[in-house]
Amino acid sequence: MLERTLVQSQGFRNTGPAGGKPTGFEFRLRLPNYRGLRASLSDGVDVTVDGETFPYEGNVLVVEGRELPLAQLREATDVRWAVDEAITVRVPRAGGLAAGVHEVAVGVRLRAPYIPIQFQPMVVNESRQLTLVDASVGTGGFKYGVSLYSYSEDFGTVLTLEDCMAHVASVGATGIEILGEAHVPRYPNPPAAWVGHWHAQLAKHGLEATNYGSWIDTRLRLSRQMTAVEAAEDLVRDIRLAALLGFRFVRPKIGVVSIDLKPDPIWQEAVERALPEAEKAGIVICPEIHAPTPIRHPITEDYVRFIERTGTKHFGLLIDTGIFQDRPLPYFPGETEDMRTSFLNGIKVPPADFLAVAKHVVFIQSKFHHIDKDLHDHHIPWHTVVPMLKAAGYTGYLSSEYEGERSPWASLEQVRRQHALLRRLAAASG
Amino acid sequence: MLERTLVQSQGFRNTGPAGGKPTGFEFRLRLPNYRGLRASLSDGVDVTVDGETFPYEGNVLVVEGRELPLAQLREATDVRWAVDEAITVRVPRAGGLAAGVHEVAVGVRLRAPYIPIQFQPMVVNESRQLTLVDASVGTGGFKYGVSLYSYSEDFGTVLTLEDCMAHVASVGATGIEILGEAHVPRYPNPPAAWVGHWHAQLAKHGLEATNYGSWIDTRLRLSRQMTAVEAAEDLVRDIRLAALLGFRFVRPKIGVVSIDLKPDPIWQEAVERALPEAEKAGIVICPEIHAPTPIRHPITEDYVRFIERTGTKHFGLLIDTGIFQDRPLPYFPGETEDMRTSFLNGIKVPPADFLAVAKHVVFIQSKFHHIDKDLHDHHIPWHTVVPMLKAAGYTGYLSSEYEGERSPWASLEQVRRQHALLRRLAAASG
Repeated sequence: MLERTLVQSQGFRNTGPAGGKPTGFEFRLRLPNYRGLRASLSDGVDVTVDGETFPYEGNVLVVEGRELPLAQLREATDVRWAVDEAITVRVPRAGGLAAGVHEVAVGVRLRAPYIPIQFQPMVVNESRQLTLVDASVGTGGFKYGVSLYSYSEDFGTVLTLEDCMAHVASVGATGIEILGEAHVPRYPNPPAAWVGHWHAQLAKHGLEATNYGSWIDTRLRLSRQMTAVEAAEDLVRDIRLAALLGFRFVRPKIGVVSIDLKPDPIWQEAVERALPEAEKAGIVICPEIHAPTPIRHPITEDYVRFIERTGTKHFGLLIDTGIFQDRPLPYFPGETEDMRTSFLNGIKVPPADFLAVAKHVVFIQSKFHHIDKDLHDHHIPWHTVVPMLKAAGYTGYLSSEYEGERSPWASLEQVRRQHALLRRLAAASG
Repeated sequence: MLERTLVQSQGFRNTGPAGGKPTGFEFRLRLPNYRGLRASLSDGVDVTVDGETFPYEGNVLVVEGRELPLAQLREATDVRWAVDEAITVRVPRAGGLAAGVHEVAVGVRLRAPYIPIQFQPMVVNESRQLTLVDASVGTGGFKYGVSLYSYSEDFGTVLTLEDCMAHVASVGATGIEILGEAHVPRYPNPPAAWVGHWHAQLAKHGLEATNYGSWIDTRLRLSRQMTAVEAAEDLVRDIRLAALLGFRFVRPKIGVVSIDLKPDPIWQEAVERALPEAEKAGIVICPEIHAPTPIRHPITEDYVRFIERTGTKHFGLLIDTGIFQDRPLPYFPGETEDMRTSFLNGIKVPPADFLAVAKHVVFIQSKFHHIDKDLHDHHIPWHTVVPMLKAAGYTGYLSSEYEGERSPWASLEQVRRQHALLRRLAAASG
């Protein structure tokens, strides 16, 4: 599915010779019309980026793979621009564009023979913010991924699984994280054809499966608690499915028994029973350290003790960067100060606390809520978190977990902004 | 794909024994959660319609086809509510609900074991307007259809073709109208597998293919006009494709040569050349009488003369009900009075003018722009148009063409409202 805006966030990038200096940029464009048309009925696209204008005469449209400068476009009666397929607009500009957020405006020129020629071409205008992620700055020592959690609400309403995967790849990420009981059709028993399709999509987009989110639903029934044996069965079920799909980490979200989120004590027996399956599958089980639970806390210490006691290499910690949040989240509609759960103001874990558990951390979910057009995160202090992770020797995934405002398609641009920001900080630090 | 709202417009209907008095109503519901869950983790749904409350204890959820009253729901660990699949909520109410627009509110009760039990169940609230179309009032002598033009902008961004077809069927319509160069993948040469899929979808939803929109793009190139032979080739191409897909009418939108929309004179030769193909395919070619062109106008007279001269049964008139518009459309953003094209204020064709051409009218597109929650159309005087069509003996299709505000998903509810309104007026008149 396409974004509702004409200019699509996915596909915005610099162009030019491989390894060389960019010679321009390109973006994808949805047709502003209710009908598809032969390319000759389009008459080029005016482009303005941050106030700099690139007139339609000099831009090239790529329709069905054919590069069409204006003169060829006007005679292109053998290729079509479909309403549900974006074309690409190529704009020459020495050096391309800088990584970051740009204001991109278009004037899409179309001709309709059934409208009097006096009104032709019709020009449809739009302007939007669009983030360029420049993977050429390098990784800065980390790996980059995206959790499909980022697309919550969008998934199933405006994005298919395939759309999500394409978007992850388009930000230059190499890792994809899913939630089993959300993104796997007919979970926990996906059709074999779908499993094949999943692997084919991974290969197509150059992605590797990273972390798989699961749940140990200890209060599955109102009538009784789950037993440790049942919990182990559920965990094994997810480990097997995760392995089938190529994942390396499984994050079980464990039911709690107290107001301060103490996990149900059955977790130790359940995980221990599942460890042989994890070993067999080459998977690391990693519960998350997630606000309001900080790093220095009995729950975290219990996890570390479990690792030390069992000596396993198949259990580790997942850090959710929401623990570093140091400014309040906006109130949700109708929320007042006295209704607020205090941890939503940020539990402000000092980033350096990470060092105490770094050797057990196998995965990081880069939780965030809003990054503005200056690539400034309103809640998570990335400028201290990123250098600290580097100093701690962490070289694993930073896997985006967007958890902000859920208007349709908002996640797409926010994820792009986070990748532009993280790569910039990673390249600049240490 | 699902609507963004939790309560889905598609699926809202009365329930009860076939042919008997309704005993309740039902609607479809999207899961307000980022993960799917076993049904036992949901705890029923409170429902309020127009201020009348139906507590969760008495409502039944239908999950994966299983009817689950509350007691069974709480133990239902073997069926799952997926994030991208709606369940059905059944509410008992003697007599069901009246046709028309209702304010439907839900309180969706969910339990999450990883959240302290003190906060359980979480209740997610939503309220929206929802239109019940009651097909049991009968057809009033017309047939009802929907043009996929109604879903412009939504198609390809929030709705797939399959979603559109399901929506058409869900309003009780039996006819579907498409635009060839919009809704046919790889137009004009769809894959054979897709053609089979199209017919299977028609059968699945009990729909018949009605009118197929095509274009004769006389100004396809800037460099020269299209010839009559080329125009005939394009029309024949569309007649063949329309026939392959089971359509009975083809509406060519013909390029114009004057400010008052005179069709390019090549149309007569082009149509005449295509007539044998139309006869062979059992298709009626029907250009539309569309604002600003009224019924009493040389263009309409030319079409009628063509019919009389050729004696063909494969050419007729399509009436777009926009000609009856008698109140102004709202200004588009930034539009001022002096910018306004006057026909957007309505050309106010007297409905009775229809009688003069009724015998040549083969299809009606029920153009409309906004119907409010009292089923009052702000622009088209249906209360005079519908009885007049009936008096004229028209028994063909009224095929919705929604052309109003294009916020995502708005078309879904508007099409439902039109069908509720048209059926009510048709049943009440003559």
